[in-house]
Amino acid sequence: MGIVGLGRLGRQHAENIEFRIPNAELSAVCSIVKSEVDEVQSAWGIEYGYTNFDEMLTNKELDAIFISSPSGEHCRQIEAALDAGFHVFSEKPLGLTIEECILAEKAVERHPDKVFMLGFMRRYDSSYSYAKRKIQEGAIGKPFLIRCYGLDPVSAIQGAIKFAATSGGIFLDMAIHDFDLARWYLESEVRSIYAVGGCFGYKEFGKFSDADNAAALVQFKNDAMGMFYAGRTSAHGYHIETEIVGTEGALRIGTIPVKNQVTVFNQNGAVLECSSGFMERFEDAYVNELQEFVNCVVENRKPSVTVYDGTRSTKIAYAATDSFKHNKLVFLD
Amino acid sequence: MGIVGLGRLGRQHAENIEFRIPNAELSAVCSIVKSEVDEVQSAWGIEYGYTNFDEMLTNKELDAIFISSPSGEHCRQIEAALDAGFHVFSEKPLGLTIEECILAEKAVERHPDKVFMLGFMRRYDSSYSYAKRKIQEGAIGKPFLIRCYGLDPVSAIQGAIKFAATSGGIFLDMAIHDFDLARWYLESEVRSIYAVGGCFGYKEFGKFSDADNAAALVQFKNDAMGMFYAGRTSAHGYHIETEIVGTEGALRIGTIPVKNQVTVFNQNGAVLECSSGFMERFEDAYVNELQEFVNCVVENRKPSVTVYDGTRSTKIAYAATDSFKHNKLVFLD
Amino acid sequence: MGIVGLGRLGRQHAENIEFRIPNAELSAVCSIVKSEVDEVQSAWGIEYGYTNFDEMLTNKELDAIFISSPSGEHCRQIEAALDAGFHVFSEKPLGLTIEECILAEKAVERHPDKVFMLGFMRRYDSSYSYAKRKIQEGAIGKPFLIRCYGLDPVSAIQGAIKFAATSGGIFLDMAIHDFDLARWYLESEVRSIYAVGGCFGYKEFGKFSDADNAAALVQFKNDAMGMFYAGRTSAHGYHIETEIVGTEGALRIGTIPVKNQVTVFNQNGAVLECSSGFMERFEDAYVNELQEFVNCVVENRKPSVTVYDGTRSTKIAYAATDSFKHNKLVFLD
Amino acid sequence: MGIVGLGRLGRQHAENIEFRIPNAELSAVCSIVKSEVDEVQSAWGIEYGYTNFDEMLTNKELDAIFISSPSGEHCRQIEAALDAGFHVFSEKPLGLTIEECILAEKAVERHPDKVFMLGFMRRYDSSYSYAKRKIQEGAIGKPFLIRCYGLDPVSAIQGAIKFAATSGGIFLDMAIHDFDLARWYLESEVRSIYAVGGCFGYKEFGKFSDADNAAALVQFKNDAMGMFYAGRTSAHGYHIETEIVGTEGALRIGTIPVKNQVTVFNQNGAVLECSSGFMERFEDAYVNELQEFVNCVVENRKPSVTVYDGTRSTKIAYAATDSFKHNKLVFLD
Repeated sequence: MGIVGLGRLGRQHAENIEFRIPNAELSAVCSIVKSEVDEVQSAWGIEYGYTNFDEMLTNKELDAIFISSPSGEHCRQIEAALDAGFHVFSEKPLGLTIEECILAEKAVERHPDKVFMLGFMRRYDSSYSYAKRKIQEGAIGKPFLIRCYGLDPVSAIQGAIKFAATSGGIFLDMAIHDFDLARWYLESEVRSIYAVGGCFGYKEFGKFSDADNAAALVQFKNDAMGMFYAGRTSAHGYHIETEIVGTEGALRIGTIPVKNQVTVFNQNGAVLECSSGFMERFEDAYVNELQEFVNCVVENRKPSVTVYDGTRSTKIAYAATDSFKHNKLVFLD
Repeated sequence: MGIVGLGRLGRQHAENIEFRIPNAELSAVCSIVKSEVDEVQSAWGIEYGYTNFDEMLTNKELDAIFISSPSGEHCRQIEAALDAGFHVFSEKPLGLTIEECILAEKAVERHPDKVFMLGFMRRYDSSYSYAKRKIQEGAIGKPFLIRCYGLDPVSAIQGAIKFAATSGGIFLDMAIHDFDLARWYLESEVRSIYAVGGCFGYKEFGKFSDADNAAALVQFKNDAMGMFYAGRTSAHGYHIETEIVGTEGALRIGTIPVKNQVTVFNQNGAVLECSSGFMERFEDAYVNELQEFVNCVVENRKPSVTVYDGTRSTKIAYAATDSFKHNKLVFLD
Repeated sequence: MGIVGLGRLGRQHAENIEFRIPNAELSAVCSIVKSEVDEVQSAWGIEYGYTNFDEMLTNKELDAIFISSPSGEHCRQIEAALDAGFHVFSEKPLGLTIEECILAEKAVERHPDKVFMLGFMRRYDSSYSYAKRKIQEGAIGKPFLIRCYGLDPVSAIQGAIKFAATSGGIFLDMAIHDFDLARWYLESEVRSIYAVGGCFGYKEFGKFSDADNAAALVQFKNDAMGMFYAGRTSAHGYHIETEIVGTEGALRIGTIPVKNQVTVFNQNGAVLECSSGFMERFEDAYVNELQEFVNCVVENRKPSVTVYDGTRSTKIAYAATDSFKHNKLVFLD
Repeated sequence: MGIVGLGRLGRQHAENIEFRIPNAELSAVCSIVKSEVDEVQSAWGIEYGYTNFDEMLTNKELDAIFISSPSGEHCRQIEAALDAGFHVFSEKPLGLTIEECILAEKAVERHPDKVFMLGFMRRYDSSYSYAKRKIQEGAIGKPFLIRCYGLDPVSAIQGAIKFAATSGGIFLDMAIHDFDLARWYLESEVRSIYAVGGCFGYKEFGKFSDADNAAALVQFKNDAMGMFYAGRTSAHGYHIETEIVGTEGALRIGTIPVKNQVTVFNQNGAVLECSSGFMERFEDAYVNELQEFVNCVVENRKPSVTVYDGTRSTKIAYAATDSFKHNKLVFLD
């Protein structure tokens, strides 16, 4: 495999390919930052290094391309890599505009023999996939409500502020994972959405008509309900919580986002320390999704996450942003 | 005190007045069901019994009237009792229409020397009042989001179906407590509301354009956000959960609605049994609110729950119902 | 009822008798501290006040005597009150020596028509009694192991140090509640005991051959096992935890000794604040045990806690102390 | 590396070496069961296969030997492998007799240039190692009490019964992990031990003077206390729980042995499903300990788990067994 993008998450993906996936090999790394390429090549002995993505695509020793570049590059690189004959894994989001997403969809459709997978890694977390299985087994009857929390630790706020101009806003940047989860668990598409938000702690987001905390209420086409809360100012850590309520029970995932199995008893009481960030919380999920991609390539089958999941989640995020910006109810389609 | 209404909750209130409030005495009971009056009188040796409310108001030995009659009677009885010179405690909701509520407000205003209190007992639960104090002490900074769950056990569904025609709908019947809590914790009024819902398990509610489960998203005038979920089909029990998120932390009350401090380890895993209903969960809160009412009378001061809290919560419930029935965004005032 | 002893807990008992037990009336208070007597009499309008216990026993208007005096007085006062024709409730421990306990036993046996009850209030806590019922219903099969934690908050350490010379040691002072619980849940008596301990934080207890933290392992006559841990230096608060393991499951009571249903999320993580002391944790249990005593008197029946429970728990505490002081295994009987 | 023993756990170790440790390679597998050797060789393309351990030791392409054979073989194989010039990793226990352990110690001492590591994998679990770091950072002051639960799910009872004749008993077979943890966290050795137990559900263990559930109380040389409970009949699953109490706080690891982050709300209440067994609970720890071993070899340093940890834990287990069998207090050394 070859990988493009060697930022913090990209480097972790590279390490996973090289060291944690038995039936995959990292042969090429690509980044516009040459020092990143050099460092990874020499540290792990990677044969090929590129600073130009299209050049990497001429390497016929590669079978698959992993895209972990900035979001604005995803769709173009997906298209180029598929057209060059590679299997493709792309980090989320699929794209920053619906138009881009449609181009990516068309590229995938042009190459039905190639595996394409999108990095909605939460579906591959052991707790999230366990919940999916429980639902499929009927443990909660028919699901009709989902509640999703996606809260970043306030310790990461400066990075978020720096990134605010190009992030696409809190719904596209953060809640998109939750919109995917909601579609996955409820097996329905969005009918209407109302979103609210504000800059409660950090006015900086206001310059970009963005929020530091926002919420949305969604009605799905099967009448199911979705409550979404995305925030950037969580005091206690990285808090990803999902609840699915059905006619005969409910499931909660991560209701207290514990760091591990240690409880500390001290003058504050019984303290459950919380996850520090997505790399800690979803460490295994990142490996699992990659393993699934590689297995799909090897076994010549398709993953359950499709390019359309990317487009549809993006559409919901756009509708939420629209609703929030204009304080109006938005109907999809 | 005299009490009107000796149904299940009314009888509990009567018992609390008689046995659990040291500085109050139950001297009169009133119900249109004579057998209820007779039974309570003879069981506890209560001096006066009435089947006519207005007749009870002629009893000059009484200082205060407790109203636990059907919701449609509340406002009229509040007015009559105040005008007859009594202090008045009324169960929630204040009334079934805004017009009624305004009449009750006017009656309270006519008698500034009388204590009037509304039965939003959750404010007097030890966990809810503890959370309020923590917020006032600054433990979570400035609150900007509230999430409220109000779920009745599915074991009570037949009663809810029977009551469906006159309940006013799920928002007026159930979520009104949560609307009061939201206003109390956020200290702001509602700007806009969007509500969705459906009959996911029990089609019977559809006949009355009601839902068995419903959710609402609210924007408050200070930009704070409110997420509300009311349901009648909870498999695990009576689930009242409230979360308040602020700029520096968050509080959750009842995140797992445990029955008591026992954890059962059996073939299912570690099992936390849940509250069976409001009488179990808020047993102490019912006593505490009553004690506060009596203390206000004795000490000649006013409780923090006012008649206006009743009207405003009712207005929100009406707006939610309107939004849900017509699938539209509703702006208040 | 008349009460002797108006210290912190005694005053609470007095308040419970006066205000929280509908079918009891507090008519007399007794304390060697005259100011305490005066204060309670005038605050609540109690008719009779005494500074001499035997004088109170001459008051023929009283039906029952509540003993909340220092532990060294219990047995003598129990005997005197029973012989004077009263029903008697005594705080734990029954006595400070086995000889005293035997005298109290004989007094109880001399007056089979009188109700005698000992203040093992934990049995009347809603969680503890719920656990007992679950066991009786067979929820965990046959119980064969109990683990008991009894930890006082370190905030109370100065009081414990002051009291160290006369407390009888950590097992008699603190673990005696747990020995009673173990006998109650396991329905067996102790065969052997080994106890260890030390002064890990406060050397002051060493002067009295006492410990600030101590543990014991017990084998019961039915082969069941008991693990006991008593401590005076708990950082997080008052921690009373009990686990009963059976052949088909297990129950834990108070595994995290939460103060209430509020979870605080802040920079420390998810924080469950803990009980501050026994008055907070067992507030309801103190009322419930008293209600049971009064009901027994009224209904002419006997409570399940007997005088023998007092003697036997004391014997275990003595054996534990003996084992700890001499680092040896002690067999009872 | 070469591995001996391809049973359930051995095969997992082999898979870890081959697929999860980037800087290790599995070149040889050995088992007296030829079909196991053949299967692993062909499934993963392992070059060398042996049914004779000593033959494997003649393979000079190997650097290290992993021993996952039956416990009775450990010491002899450790000695042989070290003497043949290999680094050695051995599963616990070190040996079945103290004499064997001493021989292994001597072999390790003869080869100071070789890495020897014992499979006390719990030390490498992320929660257990986190707790160790917290203690080292002073989070709980000075530790003075440890409580260890090691409970196997009752679903595994038939295997335990089959293995009962040769397991060495519940303390040697199960509690040995806990004795190691206690020594690790408390940094002290055992002074005295008292152990009790019984056959509460399965009389079969009685034939071998063994117990299905047993408990021990230990006094350490620094006066610290240890409470140990090992059981084979846990209804709710595999329950490994450890609590360390210090002068300024306490830590609990795995107080509810949850399977994952999902909470199920159903008619039973809020249900936390539990771990099914050691392979699920310690999946990552098995990889981590192996990684540490390989890193030690590569970086020419020694792991913190030594051969002496094996001997000392075994001595405690023997003392516990002696105490339990003869119902007496046992002093070590």
